[in-house]
Amino acid sequence: MSTPARRGRPGYDLESLLQVAVKLFNERGYDGTSMEDLSRKLGITKSAIYHHVPSKEELLRLAVDRALNGLFAVAAETESFEGRAIEKLEHLVRGSVLVLVDQLPFVTLLLRVRGNTKVERAALARRREFDRLVTELVKQAEAEGDVRPDIDPAVTARLLYGMVNSLIEWYRPRRGSAGTELADAVCKIAFDGLRTQQGS
Amino acid sequence: MSTPARRGRPGYDLESLLQVAVKLFNERGYDGTSMEDLSRKLGITKSAIYHHVPSKEELLRLAVDRALNGLFAVAAETESFEGRAIEKLEHLVRGSVLVLVDQLPFVTLLLRVRGNTKVERAALARRREFDRLVTELVKQAEAEGDVRPDIDPAVTARLLYGMVNSLIEWYRPRRGSAGTELADAVCKIAFDGLRTQQGS
Repeated sequence: MSTPARRGRPGYDLESLLQVAVKLFNERGYDGTSMEDLSRKLGITKSAIYHHVPSKEELLRLAVDRALNGLFAVAAETESFEGRAIEKLEHLVRGSVLVLVDQLPFVTLLLRVRGNTKVERAALARRREFDRLVTELVKQAEAEGDVRPDIDPAVTARLLYGMVNSLIEWYRPRRGSAGTELADAVCKIAFDGLRTQQGS
Repeated sequence: MSTPARRGRPGYDLESLLQVAVKLFNERGYDGTSMEDLSRKLGITKSAIYHHVPSKEELLRLAVDRALNGLFAVAAETESFEGRAIEKLEHLVRGSVLVLVDQLPFVTLLLRVRGNTKVERAALARRREFDRLVTELVKQAEAEGDVRPDIDPAVTARLLYGMVNSLIEWYRPRRGSAGTELADAVCKIAFDGLRTQQGS
């Protein structure tokens, strides 16, 4: 019935194996998931898994790198823009929401990383780099007079991404809310507030 | 040197025991922490712990109830207000930030609860009740013309509390940012946006 995969058991290539691993890590925690658990879940032997990846940590690295690469790709786009910092910031937020929606299990895993292993510490370092980049844009936009000057830019950046990152807690693809709609909602509230302009 | 506690070992009453338990649950996860771990951390026997509480789950219940009672107390205050729904909503958000800052380890534990035990499921049910209450206020404020009508109220409520709840990820008391300043920052961004009014 099925075409045998080129390597490993039919039905599993590295990509599908990674998908299952990430789902399991999110359910049970990375520390709480063993290669034994993964092999049981996949219905293949551990050596079949090791045929694809050398370690559990390598699965984690592949997963968090996918999330981080998605976010940094948006950041790189943003930097190549001409224009005001607030427009760049809005592009970055919008793009980040789309990455979260698109790569939900991968970003969920990234945001729950606690830093117990080398891979986790590296991921946390890249997250801090991303945070700095957001804070820098907020500062620039404030200097250009487009962002309110009465809040510490680092606090603004964290609250902004607090809103974005909260998606992993409540967004479920089947709820029918498309990524672009959600990105619009986040940008409207974050940039213009939920109060109607005549309301206050 | 120290006055013996009325019950249990000197130095530990139920309150201080709870504080240590919550810290440990937050570090290792509730599932990942045994009464054995807790007794080692406290330097007292397990039976000394059982003198104060019948089970690990009871410690969890006490902890998440403290966080939930704090949030629902603010909600009750809010309901007794005269005035527009948007003012009630702002009071609720401001009060929630203060509860988070005040009871940070307890709210952190609450927000990480996943629902594997009876206590966890009960906590999740109360969290959903709180979410409904926020959504209801957003709906009312929208009906009164004070909240933008172009976003689903449930999405607005979730983004709003996404911002509030993100505090558990990055707020550290020693950073010197007082609770009221932080509550101001959250309300300014959430209600009026980070864009200056002349900026766009």
